[in-house]
Amino acid sequence: MTGRLAIVGLGPGAPELLTPMAAEALGAATDLVGYAPYLARVPERPGQRRHASDNREELARARQALALAEAGKAVALVSSGDPGIFAMASAIFEAIEMGKPEWRGIEVTVVPGVSAMLAAAARAGAPLGHDFCVLSLSDNLKPWEIVLQRLEAAAGADLVIVLYNPASKARPWQLGEAFRAIARHRAGTTPVIFAHAVSQPDERIEIATLAESETCRADMRTLVIVGSSATRLLPRGAGAPFVYTPRHAEMVPS
Amino acid sequence: MTGRLAIVGLGPGAPELLTPMAAEALGAATDLVGYAPYLARVPERPGQRRHASDNREELARARQALALAEAGKAVALVSSGDPGIFAMASAIFEAIEMGKPEWRGIEVTVVPGVSAMLAAAARAGAPLGHDFCVLSLSDNLKPWEIVLQRLEAAAGADLVIVLYNPASKARPWQLGEAFRAIARHRAGTTPVIFAHAVSQPDERIEIATLAESETCRADMRTLVIVGSSATRLLPRGAGAPFVYTPRHAEMVPS
Repeated sequence: MTGRLAIVGLGPGAPELLTPMAAEALGAATDLVGYAPYLARVPERPGQRRHASDNREELARARQALALAEAGKAVALVSSGDPGIFAMASAIFEAIEMGKPEWRGIEVTVVPGVSAMLAAAARAGAPLGHDFCVLSLSDNLKPWEIVLQRLEAAAGADLVIVLYNPASKARPWQLGEAFRAIARHRAGTTPVIFAHAVSQPDERIEIATLAESETCRADMRTLVIVGSSATRLLPRGAGAPFVYTPRHAEMVPS
Repeated sequence: MTGRLAIVGLGPGAPELLTPMAAEALGAATDLVGYAPYLARVPERPGQRRHASDNREELARARQALALAEAGKAVALVSSGDPGIFAMASAIFEAIEMGKPEWRGIEVTVVPGVSAMLAAAARAGAPLGHDFCVLSLSDNLKPWEIVLQRLEAAAGADLVIVLYNPASKARPWQLGEAFRAIARHRAGTTPVIFAHAVSQPDERIEIATLAESETCRADMRTLVIVGSSATRLLPRGAGAPFVYTPRHAEMVPS
């Protein structure tokens, strides 16, 4: 008998941001599959098997989850944040499309989660309060030329820009080049948010300006949000100011 | 004594998508403020006061919530989905900036939620699996010229496009014009998702092509997602096919 596969968003890290729907999907699984640090967030349950993998092997992990479901297991494949945003859901559908015909018969559900960008925005204020775009800076799966073209289009249209995968040891220079591309369209005073490990014990939210943004502040667990021309700072009692984008927009000279 | 204000995301509608953090913020409030249909989702609690308002009066609602907090109440201002995405969080920061100096002393927190776009994407498959942008089609707070400029930029850069506020009784023609703007850059076969009332009892997910998309399918409770050139359909056993965007991207002729 064919099993089933739930692709489950764990949210950004804090247990209070895991939805009841995700908790139920995790509880109903016979087998959990995922990147080891994400699996470690799920409470142990007797009789439930865990299959931890490396972060880079997305398609291999997808195939492992599908093979387990094909063998009759109730599989939960875990993703941090939301599984549909630069995460495992697309990898599963790619693996099904390229894979065994039997995999098309597996019952697949996607359980959404609070994505890193929503959690980061909430901690900073409301930077995503108006039109925005969400780009991955990784050039592992697309040419850097496309990344630049998309950055230019988004900056030229005065969108707030959310950058996933801003930097890693293997990709040290991309974020600096991205900031320079955006700066051709946007003032040096534009607020930039560096949100590291949101909702986790080592959370760190830093607010900078585009002119002073340094690439060294970002790593694989950082999300970067660059404001539009309308994004503003609002001082608050203690700590960093709120960053928010008003609900209205006006034409800016390009 | 000054009170406090939590801006709380209820998620798209289903109680299973309300986070424990949001439930706790709702439970800790002396006063709930919000659009009446959203307040109706929150279970009644003795001793807790409710202040329902009309949907259009965002700034008035924000000021009401701030005045209650200033008077010492523990206020929860509720938003559907995530409060930071075209919702109440920006309205609160605008109201603080324009309002009484005392309001700057109010402790404000934003509690994120599963946004409509994440829930809609999960029900459809993984359309947001790669670079995308999120635009409001409402021209109440910005000139239509800006909307068109942003649509053209997003379509030209081959981003998946999420359209909030696609249509209402007062804005009947905007979605059709948006489709025509996107169609100047994208094939008529491009998948388009109409997600109505996601996770609610009257949920309806429809998949169309850009060429056959009709504006009459959308209303104020609909979210529209237009695929990129890479967005694909994957047949599934029963019902509509999955719609997903692969993790990789290639250059397309513009």
